[in-house]
Amino acid sequence: MRRTSFAHMPCPIARALDAVGEWWSLLIIRECFRGVRRFDDFHSGLGIARNILASRLKALVAAGILEKRSLPEEGRRRNEYCLTPKGEAMKPILLALGDWGNRYTDGQYMPPDGLSEHERNLAAQKLDQAEARS
Amino acid sequence: MRRTSFAHMPCPIARALDAVGEWWSLLIIRECFRGVRRFDDFHSGLGIARNILASRLKALVAAGILEKRSLPEEGRRRNEYCLTPKGEAMKPILLALGDWGNRYTDGQYMPPDGLSEHERNLAAQKLDQAEARS
Repeated sequence: MRRTSFAHMPCPIARALDAVGEWWSLLIIRECFRGVRRFDDFHSGLGIARNILASRLKALVAAGILEKRSLPEEGRRRNEYCLTPKGEAMKPILLALGDWGNRYTDGQYMPPDGLSEHERNLAAQKLDQAEARS
Repeated sequence: MRRTSFAHMPCPIARALDAVGEWWSLLIIRECFRGVRRFDDFHSGLGIARNILASRLKALVAAGILEKRSLPEEGRRRNEYCLTPKGEAMKPILLALGDWGNRYTDGQYMPPDGLSEHERNLAAQKLDQAEARS
């Protein structure tokens, strides 16, 4: 299904919604802020169907929000998805959504800097793993 | 079609997305900030199909984001939809989306306080109309 396109509306709110395209896309972008880069990690972290994930990643790359990189790993290529500057600029949107969700929906609380917090935790975790291996 | 529910996810971003439910809903909320209150005005302002508009308004009322008021007018009742405090608290989300849309999508520019700007214009317009009538 293709929803009505908002790409040519005079309002930048409408155009921003059109550029992102789907709820799942914003959660994929959230995962990127948390340091997720690989297809299988998006898949397991979000519980999203593989075909939907593949189509959303493709759309986010086409919209210039994510960049796909192909890296060599153990003799084969591995794909990674990273935020472009256009994607990184979406952080205030996610923080505003998170703040509203904290205040007006029932469930787990995320600290106001939840995205960065999680990034720091992930970085610390990776450092620990690297130290454990060495 | 019913998309996957994000209502019980631990992340408040996901829950916020679930509470709003659809792209159209955010544009309906934008119209509310601009002073729109009546079904026919949402309909003509957004170019949204009447059945979709009706179902989105109903969902926003059920989510506690809009309040439906029935007012007497010329012998019959007229419905109005107003933002609740929960709905008004979404302003930072819309401003963040508008800011990103201004910077990263092609089209008309909206000033950073575009929502309030428009509210002021609408208020001035109503005052003019009232004066013209008197």
